[in-house]
Amino acid sequence: MDYQTLLDEIAQDIVPYFGLGKVANYIPALAKINPQQFAISIATLDGQQYSTGQADTRFSIQSLSKVFMLSLVLGRLGDSLWTRVGKEPSGNPFNSLIQLENENGIPRNPFINAGALVVTDLANSLYGEAKAVLLDFLRQETGTTDLAFDLEVAHSEQQHGDRNAALAHFMKSYGNMVNPVDHTLDSYFHSCSITLSCAELARAGLYLANHGLSPISGQQRLSRSQAKQVNAIMLTCGTYDAAGEFAYRVGLPCKSGVGGGILAVIPGKLSMAVWSPALDSQGNSLIGLEALDRFTTRTGLSIF
Amino acid sequence: MDYQTLLDEIAQDIVPYFGLGKVANYIPALAKINPQQFAISIATLDGQQYSTGQADTRFSIQSLSKVFMLSLVLGRLGDSLWTRVGKEPSGNPFNSLIQLENENGIPRNPFINAGALVVTDLANSLYGEAKAVLLDFLRQETGTTDLAFDLEVAHSEQQHGDRNAALAHFMKSYGNMVNPVDHTLDSYFHSCSITLSCAELARAGLYLANHGLSPISGQQRLSRSQAKQVNAIMLTCGTYDAAGEFAYRVGLPCKSGVGGGILAVIPGKLSMAVWSPALDSQGNSLIGLEALDRFTTRTGLSIF
Amino acid sequence: MDYQTLLDEIAQDIVPYFGLGKVANYIPALAKINPQQFAISIATLDGQQYSTGQADTRFSIQSLSKVFMLSLVLGRLGDSLWTRVGKEPSGNPFNSLIQLENENGIPRNPFINAGALVVTDLANSLYGEAKAVLLDFLRQETGTTDLAFDLEVAHSEQQHGDRNAALAHFMKSYGNMVNPVDHTLDSYFHSCSITLSCAELARAGLYLANHGLSPISGQQRLSRSQAKQVNAIMLTCGTYDAAGEFAYRVGLPCKSGVGGGILAVIPGKLSMAVWSPALDSQGNSLIGLEALDRFTTRTGLSIF
Amino acid sequence: MDYQTLLDEIAQDIVPYFGLGKVANYIPALAKINPQQFAISIATLDGQQYSTGQADTRFSIQSLSKVFMLSLVLGRLGDSLWTRVGKEPSGNPFNSLIQLENENGIPRNPFINAGALVVTDLANSLYGEAKAVLLDFLRQETGTTDLAFDLEVAHSEQQHGDRNAALAHFMKSYGNMVNPVDHTLDSYFHSCSITLSCAELARAGLYLANHGLSPISGQQRLSRSQAKQVNAIMLTCGTYDAAGEFAYRVGLPCKSGVGGGILAVIPGKLSMAVWSPALDSQGNSLIGLEALDRFTTRTGLSIF
Repeated sequence: MDYQTLLDEIAQDIVPYFGLGKVANYIPALAKINPQQFAISIATLDGQQYSTGQADTRFSIQSLSKVFMLSLVLGRLGDSLWTRVGKEPSGNPFNSLIQLENENGIPRNPFINAGALVVTDLANSLYGEAKAVLLDFLRQETGTTDLAFDLEVAHSEQQHGDRNAALAHFMKSYGNMVNPVDHTLDSYFHSCSITLSCAELARAGLYLANHGLSPISGQQRLSRSQAKQVNAIMLTCGTYDAAGEFAYRVGLPCKSGVGGGILAVIPGKLSMAVWSPALDSQGNSLIGLEALDRFTTRTGLSIF
Repeated sequence: MDYQTLLDEIAQDIVPYFGLGKVANYIPALAKINPQQFAISIATLDGQQYSTGQADTRFSIQSLSKVFMLSLVLGRLGDSLWTRVGKEPSGNPFNSLIQLENENGIPRNPFINAGALVVTDLANSLYGEAKAVLLDFLRQETGTTDLAFDLEVAHSEQQHGDRNAALAHFMKSYGNMVNPVDHTLDSYFHSCSITLSCAELARAGLYLANHGLSPISGQQRLSRSQAKQVNAIMLTCGTYDAAGEFAYRVGLPCKSGVGGGILAVIPGKLSMAVWSPALDSQGNSLIGLEALDRFTTRTGLSIF
Repeated sequence: MDYQTLLDEIAQDIVPYFGLGKVANYIPALAKINPQQFAISIATLDGQQYSTGQADTRFSIQSLSKVFMLSLVLGRLGDSLWTRVGKEPSGNPFNSLIQLENENGIPRNPFINAGALVVTDLANSLYGEAKAVLLDFLRQETGTTDLAFDLEVAHSEQQHGDRNAALAHFMKSYGNMVNPVDHTLDSYFHSCSITLSCAELARAGLYLANHGLSPISGQQRLSRSQAKQVNAIMLTCGTYDAAGEFAYRVGLPCKSGVGGGILAVIPGKLSMAVWSPALDSQGNSLIGLEALDRFTTRTGLSIF
Repeated sequence: MDYQTLLDEIAQDIVPYFGLGKVANYIPALAKINPQQFAISIATLDGQQYSTGQADTRFSIQSLSKVFMLSLVLGRLGDSLWTRVGKEPSGNPFNSLIQLENENGIPRNPFINAGALVVTDLANSLYGEAKAVLLDFLRQETGTTDLAFDLEVAHSEQQHGDRNAALAHFMKSYGNMVNPVDHTLDSYFHSCSITLSCAELARAGLYLANHGLSPISGQQRLSRSQAKQVNAIMLTCGTYDAAGEFAYRVGLPCKSGVGGGILAVIPGKLSMAVWSPALDSQGNSLIGLEALDRFTTRTGLSIF
């Protein structure tokens, strides 16, 4: 079966799931989104792209930004990054302070909020103003010039950002936050507020499927080994406290965001993005997981 | 490069690591082993086997037994198993009670001790005497008739088994342990005491590389989907608190034991075993990890 | 106002509270008790005793036994006891394993279950068969010969004793349990099953009000300093996770049991016991706390 | 023996302890203090004062400020205070975030840092500028007009205040911090930086020994019941993770600060202060505890 037909079938299959789950409501700017939206898009290494649903509607990438910011820092710093953040699954909800306290301010991985704040702090040290560099990176990797921060969302995050502020100050108390906390938070909230469409997100992930070399921008974003590392961390840590569930059902490196987007990578083959705003109890797109499960089951594509 | 040459090279490469790490010393029967031993063996789906080092020397499989016991139970029970044990990484040392208390007696995955005890309890319910069924399974999957429990090790584990007894009683207090605790512990300690050689262990893992169908015994041990599930759980949970490190450096589903053995699976291709008794600080074979890292780096074989 | 009049008034005041709270239901033998019972009794150092309500009805002393067992061990061992159990409040529900794991098998105080099991283990080492020695102690301190274990309760505790078994095995894994776990549990469950009336319990506490010298038996049960120590531990740790609430409202050293009894001590003056089976959410007698609050408020007696 | 003679003897007894323990070094302004200083002072309800050592040397009161800020808020708000902070011992080091997370942002008691921040937040809501009101309170209760903040210490705390900032933001994320975090922190750090001499501190505590009525200012600072409550919380929570140790050895309500001061109260009789900068491993003045232990042992004064 060709990809287009399969995607169209999946778009039919998930219709009964509309109404399940809940959109993120911790900030008003996200809470008002219409949950009955869905898109899926595949970008292959040989330059094809297949999409269905509202694949050109932009949504808040939120934690998906962590993959790209991590790539920006890992590509520049290499393994010395791992003195400031771990790469083990956390086994706790995504913003827990307990583990951070037990482990002296070193977050367990770059995809929990604490870890992403450390990566953002590093990115500011390396690049000066990380949020602008990230936006530029995404413009290049999507081949789109009009990407932007959603300032309403960024502002709303800042208004409700006390838990992230707590994490940042807590790590600073351990010496694991170099720049001023306010700057790091500003960079982090703006990075999360960037909007991408499903079609754009699928393209943006291609360098991860291609051993670090982007077929879009032509740039070697990560070394072959680093690309493998990012995929490994996506698989073990990319979907909050459901990494095992995703590995088990989907069997692909995935990263999700509370805006309802999920990026999945099949190394050597393709990058895909799925989006539907309603979340399951772990904070991942409920319909997104269903769609990915169907895709890998029917194609037999899985890393396992 | 052919596998045999590569294995021989790796056997040379790891020589400088002898002397690092420490053999498991929590029971006398394991503490007395000579750490300067090493073996690696590959069994391919097309029936070849390549080995180097002391590949016919048997060692205590310890936690490697958890993969096979899980297969026995999952193959029979299917997904209803997951009401009694989770499939998420634990993010804590392998026998921590904290998470168990937070999650009402449901262990996070089948590879931490608590989870393995639940699987053993289920196996006793399903098979009557799980340890005998497991031994028989391994005899069939290795094509060897003389496998046996190491009764000195089993007895020694029992003598020092208070932490596992605590876990079992604790879960029983939540209703998640059906059979008498003493029976479960006896089954568990005997299962861990089985000895296999590296060559035997590599063969025993072939059904996991072949979508559940064993090329050794000809039996469908797991469905295609279940084999994928076991591999996924090995990747995310198979190496204590270093699953991220293994995914990152090795990039294959692996399961380790404190006897110094590690099983790794390349789905669709081969099963491999490595053994060297000295452990790193996470409880995985220090030289085993080095050897697997070299293997996947030089062959480019990785699921990522 | 004289004590008798005050007690009679309190007995009237608490009537509206009948129906609130719940009797302990973790074992059937305790769950069947009629909650609408109440008694209070005061024994003064000058030999008077004042009681009201069902002050001669015996009830299960449960955790109240921990005070007397502690006295038996502290009186004999002195401060070397504190190498095996702490004397700090626990800040967690009474049977939590988390703190025990954080603190390497040394329970925080002798009144959480783990601590009481250590004290019982020590008592067996010192006295051979601690439960018999405890029963004898209580016979002497109440001046009553017919005290006995409630074997139905002891047996019921044993049937539902997996959490205590888990605690004991866990501490044994740290080397903090010397005798066989089964023996310790048997001693512990039998000690908890002893029944006393309110009048008897009040008398039994007199040595704590009299600097360790019992006016009943004439024996110096504890040194002056040790009696002060036991009272201090009662105040800070005697009422599960409500020690602060008791200190705040009652202002006296108290020890409670899930059978609904509470012992309170006014050093230099009197010992008092109150009993009513229904418990509040912390596991203390709901009406017992109300009665003690009224007593100290109206008399102005408080250590603060 | 009269108090003066006893205090002088204690001052001799503690000399061999000079050199043990360590002064607080988390901020430079405290780290530079000479540890070989000692003072003790008693203020009795009948208007006498007895002192020895450097009883007129001022030191940083640090956490001792929590007693007085609590009194300011409790005296005004009464029991409604307890909806925002608990009154149970914490059983964890004084600034742990774990318990705060488990208990949804409600600190366990007003003497751990998180609880003191809540009380400070409340004080700012009640009084506008709590730090000024506190300074005024202490001027009145010591009968001294020249009390002041130590601005170097306050500034140093602010520079190293990330852990307290983390606590405050964390509680704000639960809705348990009403005013801007920066204002609360400023008030808190200034309050802690106030300096008092031992003689002044002893006088300042007299209202707690006198059922809330200050013999110095003539003001009813707390109701009789509230004074009892503050004393009870001092006993169970006033000395970090050593409340049990203090209750056991000293047997009096105490509050300590990392500046090396300790306030102790004997209800109905006297207030006393002791000061020596070197701290034990729990953060309490090492020599201060020794001195208080000797005082209560020799006088027989104890609430137990």
